[in-house]
Amino acid sequence: MKLATLRVNGGTRAVRLDSDTLVDLGYDDLGALFARDDWPAIATGASGETWPAEGADFAPAVPKPSKVICVGHNYTDHIKEMGRDLPCYPTLFTKFADSLIGANDPIVKPTETDALDWEVELVVVVGKPVRRATEDEAVAAIAGFTVMNDVSVRDWQFRTVEWTQGKIWDSSTPVGPYVVTPDEVGGVRPALEVKTIVDGTVMQYDDTGTLLFDPVHLVRYVSTVIRLNPGDMIATGTPSGVGHARDPKVYLVGGETVATEIAGLGACTNRVVAET
Amino acid sequence: MKLATLRVNGGTRAVRLDSDTLVDLGYDDLGALFARDDWPAIATGASGETWPAEGADFAPAVPKPSKVICVGHNYTDHIKEMGRDLPCYPTLFTKFADSLIGANDPIVKPTETDALDWEVELVVVVGKPVRRATEDEAVAAIAGFTVMNDVSVRDWQFRTVEWTQGKIWDSSTPVGPYVVTPDEVGGVRPALEVKTIVDGTVMQYDDTGTLLFDPVHLVRYVSTVIRLNPGDMIATGTPSGVGHARDPKVYLVGGETVATEIAGLGACTNRVVAET
Repeated sequence: MKLATLRVNGGTRAVRLDSDTLVDLGYDDLGALFARDDWPAIATGASGETWPAEGADFAPAVPKPSKVICVGHNYTDHIKEMGRDLPCYPTLFTKFADSLIGANDPIVKPTETDALDWEVELVVVVGKPVRRATEDEAVAAIAGFTVMNDVSVRDWQFRTVEWTQGKIWDSSTPVGPYVVTPDEVGGVRPALEVKTIVDGTVMQYDDTGTLLFDPVHLVRYVSTVIRLNPGDMIATGTPSGVGHARDPKVYLVGGETVATEIAGLGACTNRVVAET
Repeated sequence: MKLATLRVNGGTRAVRLDSDTLVDLGYDDLGALFARDDWPAIATGASGETWPAEGADFAPAVPKPSKVICVGHNYTDHIKEMGRDLPCYPTLFTKFADSLIGANDPIVKPTETDALDWEVELVVVVGKPVRRATEDEAVAAIAGFTVMNDVSVRDWQFRTVEWTQGKIWDSSTPVGPYVVTPDEVGGVRPALEVKTIVDGTVMQYDDTGTLLFDPVHLVRYVSTVIRLNPGDMIATGTPSGVGHARDPKVYLVGGETVATEIAGLGACTNRVVAET
């Protein structure tokens, strides 16, 4: 099942994709849907108003998650390109709901940076409240997966030892378009081709099956620290090939089209627009 | 004016302190109150149901802020005790609403740590939406100040280069009891005695007037990166004297009473309870 949050009629609606049609599920967004214990039955059975999928205006897959947890250093090659040893624990940082944009919204380059960069990420979307999840609870808590471009403001990220100020920029981070349930992608530890394409050139390419800390591990780890609520997201880290780690470094300046894509999930495709 | 969010009748209410009485302001919590453009007039004029301040059960000052931004390395002596140079920029990290507890709630020591620590902090509470605030806009956006004990799980904080996993523990962080408007504490850059007392022993002691990055600077800096919404909080960092930096190190094990106190604002006073 592929689910999304659609912008329509001046608001948003939670929808299901049926071949080329989006079907209204009766809730304002996927966060409100996932808050229902019986959301899988609701999502499967609903048959409301429909809209064409082509040209759809997607909101962030979950527009107002209570938390977005991001993982650094989780693909072996990316860890090596940043010059680090393989870690014993996942590195966690955060974003806020106000950082998110829709899957096809423009990425606005703030005037305050000259070091805007891409990071394609597989995102775990939480479908049940969970704390200190067992293996089984973690598996059951995964509603599905989506795509994020963890757009990073590198000059601010490395101003201090904490990356936060390079990671939470307002309306910076595409996430979506669809939340795809695990059954459609081979389960809760999917092995999917993941890539970033900038103006037609492949800049990142890897397989989500090579994650050091897999989605189930991450739900268990994060939920040890803090409760996960329906709609919360864990972005599982990015592969090698970010602009900052290239020689010479490559940054987004405005005018580019960036596609972050995961096989079976879809893509965020975003035009970069320099703020004036 | 001293404002708070009171737990009462199975819910919460935004209240004003009138000498020894708490007066209902007509909103569920201070977040809902601050969302009103005219909240100062509402807060000043309201005259609803009253409750005694003595023995009041305080919720987190703002129970569900859209973001909590924390600052590291902001008191000169604390920077020195951690062995660092004076920074050019504020170091930012985050907490989530689910990390917060009331001013007198127990601090529960998770079973997963043996390195639980205190950090008293002056907190800026935002009272207006603001982005890329000018000096005047930043001043106007400060609703008031409150107290936080930025309880830190040091062993997890230092597992990786990012502090997040030691800072966002569920229901770990007292904040309150009152949000005190700037006029009561000498303005938007208050110079107030700040201290932590553990079982009667003063462990941290400083003056909020010695902050490297003051409240107005921080509102401007953070709002450059991301919008600040009414009820959002910026915790301005902690002075020297944390347990982790002592020789030998001192951690909270359960059974202690920790008071984090700022003159003119009040104190969070919390019993530490070891989780079983």
